[in-house]
Amino acid sequence: MKIVLDAMGGDHGPAVTVLGAVEAVNEYGINIILTGNRDLIEKELKKYDYLESYIEIIHCNEEITNEDKPVAAIRRKKDSSMVVGLNLVKEKKADAIISAGNTGALLAGGLFVLGRIKGIDRPALAPVYPTTKGASILIDGGANADCKPRNYLEFGIMGNIYAAKILGIHNPRVCTVNIGMEEGKGNDVTKEAYKLCQKAKFNFAGNVEARDIPSGSADVIICDGFTGNVILKLTEGIAATIFSTLKEEFTRNTLRKLAATILKSGLKDFKKTFDYTEYGGAPFLGVQGNLIKAHGSSNAKAIKNAIRQAKAFVEKEVVKDIMQQINELGEDTVE
Amino acid sequence: MKIVLDAMGGDHGPAVTVLGAVEAVNEYGINIILTGNRDLIEKELKKYDYLESYIEIIHCNEEITNEDKPVAAIRRKKDSSMVVGLNLVKEKKADAIISAGNTGALLAGGLFVLGRIKGIDRPALAPVYPTTKGASILIDGGANADCKPRNYLEFGIMGNIYAAKILGIHNPRVCTVNIGMEEGKGNDVTKEAYKLCQKAKFNFAGNVEARDIPSGSADVIICDGFTGNVILKLTEGIAATIFSTLKEEFTRNTLRKLAATILKSGLKDFKKTFDYTEYGGAPFLGVQGNLIKAHGSSNAKAIKNAIRQAKAFVEKEVVKDIMQQINELGEDTVE
Repeated sequence: MKIVLDAMGGDHGPAVTVLGAVEAVNEYGINIILTGNRDLIEKELKKYDYLESYIEIIHCNEEITNEDKPVAAIRRKKDSSMVVGLNLVKEKKADAIISAGNTGALLAGGLFVLGRIKGIDRPALAPVYPTTKGASILIDGGANADCKPRNYLEFGIMGNIYAAKILGIHNPRVCTVNIGMEEGKGNDVTKEAYKLCQKAKFNFAGNVEARDIPSGSADVIICDGFTGNVILKLTEGIAATIFSTLKEEFTRNTLRKLAATILKSGLKDFKKTFDYTEYGGAPFLGVQGNLIKAHGSSNAKAIKNAIRQAKAFVEKEVVKDIMQQINELGEDTVE
Repeated sequence: MKIVLDAMGGDHGPAVTVLGAVEAVNEYGINIILTGNRDLIEKELKKYDYLESYIEIIHCNEEITNEDKPVAAIRRKKDSSMVVGLNLVKEKKADAIISAGNTGALLAGGLFVLGRIKGIDRPALAPVYPTTKGASILIDGGANADCKPRNYLEFGIMGNIYAAKILGIHNPRVCTVNIGMEEGKGNDVTKEAYKLCQKAKFNFAGNVEARDIPSGSADVIICDGFTGNVILKLTEGIAATIFSTLKEEFTRNTLRKLAATILKSGLKDFKKTFDYTEYGGAPFLGVQGNLIKAHGSSNAKAIKNAIRQAKAFVEKEVVKDIMQQINELGEDTVE
């Protein structure tokens, strides 16, 4: 197995991606191809001890930045670390690709370079949503701002396979995000989506209200990419706000500071519950290949975990399963 | 000034609403009309000392429950505490109405009994969203699951007036919830809404990402009712999850329990920052009358604060201002 890592991607570039790769090589013994600027990558690699035969570098002259326009970047920057990486997967020279780079460009690359799976109208991002019960999958995490009812069905099928195979959840409860529990609630699209999902083969558990997402009421949370983005970013924002407010309250005087020191490990455990870096990245499900988007602000641990996740993704043949189930669905439900 | 309180509304009925009314009477000297079952209301009133001349009871034989279908309930239960109360406002026998009852029924009642303001396509709920900077207004909080671009403009106009007059925010920053900051981001509706809001007279500050809502980046947060509902309920769910997880961590052993005791007041201050009961209820803006929806689980303090809020609502002539600004807008932007 060979996994490509876009070494130039993410807020910290090779300084973080290379360390993540080294740790994954040493821990899991996976073969990794690093695409990007050879000089910068080698400079980082020199800092560490690792099994050298496991890491290969493919030099690229270009780089896609967060300022690049997604579609144009994929079309024009043919020698970028991202496009070169995607082509390696397309040409079966690698089994999976991970990038922490420009999200829009990576998704466009997934669509244009790898291509959609036949029968899938809208591939979608499926990040892990940490809950008090463990972890759920949210799909779509932001790839498609506008969705049709049929897309929810696809999201349910793909999310269900991913939750069962990668998160190891038995018979995942698949739910549509809605503004009420009962059938008939919601906007025009979610009402129709509900009806379609009721006929699906996965364990459709009805609507989930946003209030019940953090406590893990749904294993697979399906929604359009606009709602998914709001859920993910609001969660991030609230967590950050709560931590900073708590910190302020807990350091207001010496006695409180002392008490807070005692609770430090408790606070740490608490933070860990909601730590996305534990889970790696978000797969882009519905394209013909294993593509994982790592968070732009990923640290080395998050990159390492994304590599572990990519390995599972390949081994469990998630993409093959999606192809099969979408094929079984037939074209009769496509609008 | 007379304010009607639907005494039967809310999870706890007269036990809570009557106490809230008594406290408001004693604290603010407002005249209150309680609609509902006279026996139940009098039984509660007997428990307290208050200025008797300030509270009037109008007996109603019916009650709208949370199980009732909204539109049918408003049409059929003519002698319910909610419909009787709405009619008092319509007939100018009262200046405002507050109910903690069935939300759907109350909104339907606002539309059918009070009626929309001319030029407003979709009246909307405008709850307060507590932030670290104080408070923002979120509009629409759940009245309209499907919205057109024009509705966002209306929400902006109404939310702006409310934030300036009731929350006392100078030149409120009005923002549309979106999945990116830049113009051109979002789904089809938010893209169009952005263009309309750019031409508005209020201080349109562009898009706000959900991540930046809790830190108070926007004073008026405009979105469709589906997104608004997701934001409010997710916030509630995350806060509840975080508090229960913290509690678990902080009571894991005796030493931690001791330390947590020292931090108790800090935790209390922290909780207060995000306490909706401080702010009363959510006005239903865009109808011809002052209508406030209190949270179903309101305690007496929340009811008292909703009454104080209704008083300000009447005094500051929010509805008149909305009528004026919508009128100035003219019909040229109506689709």
